[in-house]
Amino acid sequence: MNKLFQQDLKVVNVGLPSFAADIGAAGGQVTQLKWAPPAGADAATGWTLAGLMADPRIESANRAAFERYLTAQPRLVDLTLARDAIPGLRAGERRILHAGPPIVWEEMCGPQQGAIAGAIVYEGWADTLQSATALAASGAVAFEPCHAHAAVGPMAGIISPSMPVWVVENTTHGNRSFSNVNEGLGKVLRFGANSPDVLDRLRWLGTEFFNTMRVAVKGLTDTDLKPLMAQALHMGDELHNRNIAATGLLFRRLTLSLLGSDLDSATIKRALAFIAGNDHFFLNISMAACKAMTDAAHGVAHSSMVTVMARNGVKFGIRLSGTGDQWFQAPANPVEGLYFPGYSIKDAAADLGDSAITETNGLGGFAMAASPAIVQFVGGTPADAIANSRRMRSITLGANPAFTLPTLNFAGTAAGIDARLVVDSGIMPIINTGIAHKKAGVGQIGAGVTTPPMVCFNQAITALSKELAGPQ
Amino acid sequence: MNKLFQQDLKVVNVGLPSFAADIGAAGGQVTQLKWAPPAGADAATGWTLAGLMADPRIESANRAAFERYLTAQPRLVDLTLARDAIPGLRAGERRILHAGPPIVWEEMCGPQQGAIAGAIVYEGWADTLQSATALAASGAVAFEPCHAHAAVGPMAGIISPSMPVWVVENTTHGNRSFSNVNEGLGKVLRFGANSPDVLDRLRWLGTEFFNTMRVAVKGLTDTDLKPLMAQALHMGDELHNRNIAATGLLFRRLTLSLLGSDLDSATIKRALAFIAGNDHFFLNISMAACKAMTDAAHGVAHSSMVTVMARNGVKFGIRLSGTGDQWFQAPANPVEGLYFPGYSIKDAAADLGDSAITETNGLGGFAMAASPAIVQFVGGTPADAIANSRRMRSITLGANPAFTLPTLNFAGTAAGIDARLVVDSGIMPIINTGIAHKKAGVGQIGAGVTTPPMVCFNQAITALSKELAGPQ
Repeated sequence: MNKLFQQDLKVVNVGLPSFAADIGAAGGQVTQLKWAPPAGADAATGWTLAGLMADPRIESANRAAFERYLTAQPRLVDLTLARDAIPGLRAGERRILHAGPPIVWEEMCGPQQGAIAGAIVYEGWADTLQSATALAASGAVAFEPCHAHAAVGPMAGIISPSMPVWVVENTTHGNRSFSNVNEGLGKVLRFGANSPDVLDRLRWLGTEFFNTMRVAVKGLTDTDLKPLMAQALHMGDELHNRNIAATGLLFRRLTLSLLGSDLDSATIKRALAFIAGNDHFFLNISMAACKAMTDAAHGVAHSSMVTVMARNGVKFGIRLSGTGDQWFQAPANPVEGLYFPGYSIKDAAADLGDSAITETNGLGGFAMAASPAIVQFVGGTPADAIANSRRMRSITLGANPAFTLPTLNFAGTAAGIDARLVVDSGIMPIINTGIAHKKAGVGQIGAGVTTPPMVCFNQAITALSKELAGPQ
Repeated sequence: MNKLFQQDLKVVNVGLPSFAADIGAAGGQVTQLKWAPPAGADAATGWTLAGLMADPRIESANRAAFERYLTAQPRLVDLTLARDAIPGLRAGERRILHAGPPIVWEEMCGPQQGAIAGAIVYEGWADTLQSATALAASGAVAFEPCHAHAAVGPMAGIISPSMPVWVVENTTHGNRSFSNVNEGLGKVLRFGANSPDVLDRLRWLGTEFFNTMRVAVKGLTDTDLKPLMAQALHMGDELHNRNIAATGLLFRRLTLSLLGSDLDSATIKRALAFIAGNDHFFLNISMAACKAMTDAAHGVAHSSMVTVMARNGVKFGIRLSGTGDQWFQAPANPVEGLYFPGYSIKDAAADLGDSAITETNGLGGFAMAASPAIVQFVGGTPADAIANSRRMRSITLGANPAFTLPTLNFAGTAAGIDARLVVDSGIMPIINTGIAHKKAGVGQIGAGVTTPPMVCFNQAITALSKELAGPQ
């Protein structure tokens, strides 16, 4: 100790920079290390985390869950009506699926209410948006999360019984997932718009387009989605807010399939022209593929791997593989981003949609290094995009060798979020997302980048800890 | 001077590092600057260059030429037979166009001879490859560079009168350019293969495919190539050795056009399936577009802008805007790259093809920063690809704002090579290219990266200097 004080002090300061500043001002040598206490400085969660970090049961469960995720093989097997595919959505029952964790009508955000009103008119349960809204508020329609039915929907995420849904099957483990059909950008149901033109487009998508695309999907010679998505990552997509390459690769497959059918050219052309005019068309298929992959990893006892991140425009909810169907929720964050002319963050609904299933899979914000051009849509710089992909490595169980990022020397994308690592590091999953107007009926007003609230992860590891402490 | 020797010496050494090493060894402070004398240390050319570097006539001419390049608007206006489009290729005349600068039959490399023999059989001027070779050697067939006829062909670059050619028009300045149809990879005529299956494919491309695609091109609602190519750069193409995105974007346009025609589905499907199976399909259209853009800049008196770089497998030749149709030639370099299994650089023909017209336009090797995934095809790392694009800025007149590179913060690609800057800096244009087997009949054996020989640029500026010194 005497010796220590006889030397010149060389200080390493961890955390609060003001201590370092004082030492520096007094002429001392000091190295500042960036650090913040885990769990957002929540002491109880911090102690819980300490108990979980080296638990061999979690390590073993995570290895199993991550392996199931890596070996999943999503294939596009059908396009069918929701009521014919999703067990919980029977014809004749007034039930509508929505994005994010469970929520009651009264608490829903504007765009979700607007989209539901539109869906009720689409289903013919009401004649006007006004009576549809009254019906929804009356309690006569059941609302359940898409995720409760192996489904995912972007933004409002509304799936009603008569809507067509893509069916993706993970042929390795046999589970199926579902998503609705992408309507394009701007004034569309998923962003809360519900005007007559929006509903007319939905009706066409549910009839002629549905009949045509169903034939196309049935006739595909290659249904594998993973290689297509891997190729799209090498073509600048991140498969959440940029899907132009994947849409083009799918377009090629669908075209050749349709040209082998006996449908007439004019019908085929209308369907393909719709896809050609919508560079986001593949998004919903990407989401269904991601859902099929993370569902494969879901339900492994003791695993701290995140298998769902989803938002309903009010709450952000996550699920862990090891804690079953429990949701861990907190108020959703606003979205920083690029707004369409005339709009700002004041007009925006909070973070919304099931599309964060792509980030849960190592795509979207996690794969931004593959997609420098995405910053023109969500903001930031190409350097930010690369930094985001690198940073995500700190909170994941590993990398997905099927999804490689050229600018990072073809490293696999960071995948398999470990809730413990999020709580420990304070590094939040990065999510690229669209932005809906907070009022029903308006539609999309921008796109940007956001993160989940930390407290979801605090809750999740606390619940996991309780399960581990319970009877084994 | 006295004062200088009283101080500690601080030395900056330019060029040979051994001087710096001696000063360092003696305890002196020395900063080493990397430098090499211009013109590869050719003193005469160095003096010539010195006279050209500040010539206001060249500066003015280069501004004019570069402006013409930037404002060119290439559009895909037709697919037609070469004899109906290219003035110099009349039906009934035995004339064949080839890649690179002029060359006589005896001096041609194996793949070019092989491709010519195949083309002679394709034209029906001979029944067998053997008699075709004899006919070619007899002097009964005229051989001229594609570039002498506003045309470009990849690798051997063979265009004979009955082959279909894409017609691109620069609608700003009215000039047209031509290129043949891409046959795919591997065993194809442009790599010197000429077996019956190669010729059968050519015959189908020249008949059914030609008739179908001609309808498709005539029915295009969008013929603009520049925005399509710009989009493809944001999707990981560099538009020379990687064209998968551009091919997909073109596929979309062609499909919608064909579905509006009265051709039957089976015929349409065969044509589109061929394109869908060939990710390099767009290459020849990219080349024709590039030729239309650089031809717009050609012929500006006194300009030192390079408007052609082309190789015939023996010589590398360039042209300057300000020196008319003169070629400046030197032996072509070998190509470092990735070879298909069983082959090495020992089996390779030297640098071959007109496809360096893409680099002449700021694409290909110059736009590698847009295309990190290309390194899986041509070798190197994504960091090399980015460094190549940056380095090319040192030898160009400017950047093309129509062709932006996301990873370089959306900077325009370096374009408009100034021959003076190449000679001055010793920095050589970087070219991505395919590699043909040196023997006729084999085909492609790899892909890689190469550069022109410096001496072409030395010759070019010497010729420009003579013109400037002559009667004005």
